[in-house]
Amino acid sequence: MARLICDISMSLDGFVAGPNPSLERPLGDGGDLLHEWAFAAASWREQHGLTGGEANADSEVLEESTRVAGAVVMGRRMFSGGEGLWDDDPRANGWWGDDPPFHVPVFVLTNEARETLVMEGGTSFTFVTEGIEAALDQARAAAGDKDVALAGGASVVQQYLKAGLLDEIQIHLAPVLLGDGVSLFDRLGIDALGLETRRVIATPSVTHLRFGVPGVALAS
Amino acid sequence: MARLICDISMSLDGFVAGPNPSLERPLGDGGDLLHEWAFAAASWREQHGLTGGEANADSEVLEESTRVAGAVVMGRRMFSGGEGLWDDDPRANGWWGDDPPFHVPVFVLTNEARETLVMEGGTSFTFVTEGIEAALDQARAAAGDKDVALAGGASVVQQYLKAGLLDEIQIHLAPVLLGDGVSLFDRLGIDALGLETRRVIATPSVTHLRFGVPGVALAS
Repeated sequence: MARLICDISMSLDGFVAGPNPSLERPLGDGGDLLHEWAFAAASWREQHGLTGGEANADSEVLEESTRVAGAVVMGRRMFSGGEGLWDDDPRANGWWGDDPPFHVPVFVLTNEARETLVMEGGTSFTFVTEGIEAALDQARAAAGDKDVALAGGASVVQQYLKAGLLDEIQIHLAPVLLGDGVSLFDRLGIDALGLETRRVIATPSVTHLRFGVPGVALAS
Repeated sequence: MARLICDISMSLDGFVAGPNPSLERPLGDGGDLLHEWAFAAASWREQHGLTGGEANADSEVLEESTRVAGAVVMGRRMFSGGEGLWDDDPRANGWWGDDPPFHVPVFVLTNEARETLVMEGGTSFTFVTEGIEAALDQARAAAGDKDVALAGGASVVQQYLKAGLLDEIQIHLAPVLLGDGVSLFDRLGIDALGLETRRVIATPSVTHLRFGVPGVALAS
């Protein structure tokens, strides 16, 4: 069965977006600093229909994340333009452009039913109103023998983690303190949970940390 | 001039102690999981007057932190037994034992003046009531050509960081989610601050991350 892997960039102080998000700056103040390592990577640029960039270790890690993901799960706000944006975002239909960078089926957790959007380049947005398990089931079916990437935002990651449905966490730890914003783990209120360090790749731009989440095989 | 280096173990969700601290368990629920990498290290055991342990990379990192520190700065609660403990701790005089593991002069930030305690093995506890800059000045004078280690707790680290007095942060990132507790950085309320990744050493037990804090040379 496809594993569910959370793959997300986080600041050293635990934020996945800065404070004061807006339509113009959905990642909030300083939020772009979380993704500078990606913006510079050749694989990120290719994913976004651009050329150039650096073919470095960061680019390989990002390419790997893309390659192993047969489907993506995300929250409603991430679909509509980033963590922290309001739900009545007028650009809810078009934030990611006509050719979104996912190139696989994306399952969006939402309370509002709507038709699936089929975009260019292999991306589709399917809106799931029946909760996180239903979204995961649908994503797994779409992923085939690949994994499911949990893209965010923070509240969605917390929901899957607390439900024992998350198999692996890959944190791209950016060397920055944002000072405020959207906390990835916040105060989960769970008992202490030991993780298994599976891989660490450090570059000057970011440290890629991969952890296995134990007990999930039983829980799922 | 001696650099001020924060050297501290933190969970993936940003805590340096778990919830519900008590005299018996000053690091709170799950807090010991932050330090398992150290407890197993030969250099930690030697520092605490014990034999055995593993002479591994974790042990080398810990030995290095000890070797470069000519003085230590810590908060009152850490002196009296750990983050989160109350100030009227009856063991305030003896938490660290007759031969504390520091073996250098320790400067304790406090509101209550008291005589310096000279312990066995080279450790002394000097109580500084004139604030963080005074404590740092005294620690620098004591450190000579070595560095000053900022041991914690979280509120003290935050004070030095916000004052622009911190030169380097070494985080021993433990592969554990504590779910709640004492947050190292919390919401600092500062503008985004990019750090310089200086070194990453990863072992199965912990990831040692060392960052330079920019602008501090000017500020101090």
